[in-house]
Amino acid sequence: MNDSYLNFVNSPLGARLARSLHLPKPEMLRRYRADAPEFDGIVAVGAGPSPQLLDALAGVIARIGMTSVAHAGASAWMPLANRHGLMTGRFEPADPAAGSQAGSQARVRALVFDASGIADSAQLDTVYAFFHDALRSLDKCGRIVVLGRPPEACASPRQWTAQRALEGVTRSLGKEARRGIASNLVYVADGVKSSAERSAASSAASSDESSNDSGIRSGIESTLRFFLSPRSAYVSGQVVRIGTAPSSLGDDFDWTQPLAGQRAVVTGAARGIGAAIANVLAAQGAHVTGIDVPAATDALDATMRQISGTALPFDITAPETPAQIAAALDELGVDVFVHNAGITKDKTIAKMSEPAWRNVIDINLSAQERIDEALLEAGTLRDGGRIVCVSSIGGIAGNIGQTNYAASKAGVIGRVQSMAPHLAKRRITINAVAPGFIETQMTAKMPLAIREAGRRMNSMSQGGQPVDVAQTIAWLAHPGSAGITGQVVRVCGQSLIGA
Amino acid sequence: MNDSYLNFVNSPLGARLARSLHLPKPEMLRRYRADAPEFDGIVAVGAGPSPQLLDALAGVIARIGMTSVAHAGASAWMPLANRHGLMTGRFEPADPAAGSQAGSQARVRALVFDASGIADSAQLDTVYAFFHDALRSLDKCGRIVVLGRPPEACASPRQWTAQRALEGVTRSLGKEARRGIASNLVYVADGVKSSAERSAASSAASSDESSNDSGIRSGIESTLRFFLSPRSAYVSGQVVRIGTAPSSLGDDFDWTQPLAGQRAVVTGAARGIGAAIANVLAAQGAHVTGIDVPAATDALDATMRQISGTALPFDITAPETPAQIAAALDELGVDVFVHNAGITKDKTIAKMSEPAWRNVIDINLSAQERIDEALLEAGTLRDGGRIVCVSSIGGIAGNIGQTNYAASKAGVIGRVQSMAPHLAKRRITINAVAPGFIETQMTAKMPLAIREAGRRMNSMSQGGQPVDVAQTIAWLAHPGSAGITGQVVRVCGQSLIGA
Repeated sequence: MNDSYLNFVNSPLGARLARSLHLPKPEMLRRYRADAPEFDGIVAVGAGPSPQLLDALAGVIARIGMTSVAHAGASAWMPLANRHGLMTGRFEPADPAAGSQAGSQARVRALVFDASGIADSAQLDTVYAFFHDALRSLDKCGRIVVLGRPPEACASPRQWTAQRALEGVTRSLGKEARRGIASNLVYVADGVKSSAERSAASSAASSDESSNDSGIRSGIESTLRFFLSPRSAYVSGQVVRIGTAPSSLGDDFDWTQPLAGQRAVVTGAARGIGAAIANVLAAQGAHVTGIDVPAATDALDATMRQISGTALPFDITAPETPAQIAAALDELGVDVFVHNAGITKDKTIAKMSEPAWRNVIDINLSAQERIDEALLEAGTLRDGGRIVCVSSIGGIAGNIGQTNYAASKAGVIGRVQSMAPHLAKRRITINAVAPGFIETQMTAKMPLAIREAGRRMNSMSQGGQPVDVAQTIAWLAHPGSAGITGQVVRVCGQSLIGA
Repeated sequence: MNDSYLNFVNSPLGARLARSLHLPKPEMLRRYRADAPEFDGIVAVGAGPSPQLLDALAGVIARIGMTSVAHAGASAWMPLANRHGLMTGRFEPADPAAGSQAGSQARVRALVFDASGIADSAQLDTVYAFFHDALRSLDKCGRIVVLGRPPEACASPRQWTAQRALEGVTRSLGKEARRGIASNLVYVADGVKSSAERSAASSAASSDESSNDSGIRSGIESTLRFFLSPRSAYVSGQVVRIGTAPSSLGDDFDWTQPLAGQRAVVTGAARGIGAAIANVLAAQGAHVTGIDVPAATDALDATMRQISGTALPFDITAPETPAQIAAALDELGVDVFVHNAGITKDKTIAKMSEPAWRNVIDINLSAQERIDEALLEAGTLRDGGRIVCVSSIGGIAGNIGQTNYAASKAGVIGRVQSMAPHLAKRRITINAVAPGFIETQMTAKMPLAIREAGRRMNSMSQGGQPVDVAQTIAWLAHPGSAGITGQVVRVCGQSLIGA
């Protein structure tokens, strides 16, 4: 739970020592705190040819209260920003002669590039131009967000190719930016129209106010807010797709309590990542029901008491449990179900016992299948609801001694991909988060060398916290995230390890 | 080009020293040699419930001259093997008491598991049972092949989920098997019917000989041969999909000269990986035309002379080149085009010059687009042809100082994915290989620490050779690989590094 190296090199003495010995100096990540402003500072905006998402972006930046500067390549920005009443200026590159640490230019909190109009690989030089000029100006723990179009939906192979190329840039930027900076790519489906396009279509009849972009707002606002917020501190190197499924958040939507009035269930909620998920969902307004094994009832009760939640001590693998969960929740229904419960029983396969295989598959995977079937059949999970499953980087890349765990967590990915189209009719989304190295009691028990390797082999040079996983789940559970389904988002600080 | 550690620990003194100091001991990989039998030894066969691919598998194993043993879970194997005239016996697990090194049981060269009938996560325990019993018996440099069904084509979410879970097992097995063992997963589309199914359908009319499985033979034989052969020495942790596109190899097909009578083009062919590709394609019977920049004409001439190929000194980025290539090849046409030419110009983006960006994108990506357009328009690339592009692990995962390179190589993946459906009408396949750390003049110039990290951070604990990339390309270029398109196969020894 405690990364003493991270703490040490961020102390005055440790920082001096790290500098003189050229030791790596992981940044103390800026995380969300209820007592500090979630959004502040400057966003530098760049754009390729024919950018289509700047209007929506300007609306979001104006509403969250950040200011903006526009790179020379984003000439369309100024009028849009003015229209949204957004304070804006011209981006001035930091003076390279002054070195990367100095320079009189104010540092920016985020670099956002609208690549939606890039239709050919030759146009990728606009991406280069922006990040070449702007990366030095990005503050520590800053954000890089590249907005593109889903390659597989592009009309021409050349456009698909150029949009797909953005992945290489975004992931490379995450790896070279360091300093706690996160870099992510968001592919926004074309059906999520910008207000400019829509008002051009419905023309004179509609008013010209900024509120007429609520369509796109519900489409991408929850995601832009997440990636610009300290809530996404440990999410980097990810590619997220936003589809066209509509979600209708009114203009009076309370973004500080997005889950107000909703009922959420979290399995494995007594401790660790599960308890963090329960806490975050409750802080966002949900009533949380925590499920955990009867043996953990005391811890579960304590966790639920703190958040005025409900404890349901159930063994999720018992044959009768799915029906019992459905019955227990049936009266009020469920809006958000988080399948977090999971175990490891590590052994190389030649030494692994059959129960060790079966237990891990059953708890981490099959139980999720049975519970969802019961909840969906009974209608307990409401239309428009959210399912979020916890997978793992081990399910993506495999791991020594974890054939059972990796199978279960790879299966979770299959579950999310296979269920998404089925659930779309009921406007239910299903997604997975795949944690990398997260500081928990489990990782605290690892041998030192393995723990240190896991901690440092990512772009943040440190492990994540349970709250990082929880915040990512809360974003996927958000009413505004209706367009995100069937996806896997790693919470891994851009771990080197992959498949 | 020279991994002195690998050589040292495989010398008598080095091996003793490595043992006593507990140093890692990478295996000398068994690679294809024209003067040694490509296939020999025993395949141990396992199966889940209702396996559908055993008949096809038995046919291939019989034809390549290996023998087989059947695990207790594969009761369907014996009669099928007998039908194909394949020597077979019962698999006896190695005695665990005797330790993993000892045991009187003959070691096996390959473990093949037919998981095609697994329809539910609970049935994954059959996978466990086979590898639990059999992994210890697998010889060094052995092969693990798991056969499944493409998850996205499965009828039920539960089946999709269970098939997707196989990825976690296969990748974990690759990581824990070590000893130069490669582990791969092949998803075979259902339309590629087994001869048993087909003969049941056309029943009495058809004869009951083994030759009546030529349909599935052309579907999966080139792939099974590749993964059972020492040609795939450095390909591990990969997932390959075989679709239903038919390819008709006659019963008299010469598997030793699969490209006989074909014309292949390789860009960047003067040296390194390009020269290795040219050599392997020529060894498999193709006439090779090598393209490289005019400055490399001497090296290109020398490489082509050795294989009786044709040298075409062209700068692929010159505007007139695509038309010139098409004109030069037009009379005889092209069956196989390998886009291998590529450069790096590494710098962090803030220090990268605009020409460094543009050059890398243009040579590695845009030039491929222009050349393919010219060849396809002119009809120079024949119907039923093959395009293979060289991507990179950097295009998948991104890399520090390689925003340009990673963008270009990620774009290559987009090219392959976007062009595949367009080219399917003409029965042309397009795929990419993504090399990991390959021992070349380029890697020989890396600083020692970076080179050693790159070499060791994979399941083989060593870098690959150019020939490993070349053999993988030859498999994709094979006339029997008609069902493989739009895919990216890493040649990386199951590198830890991924996305």
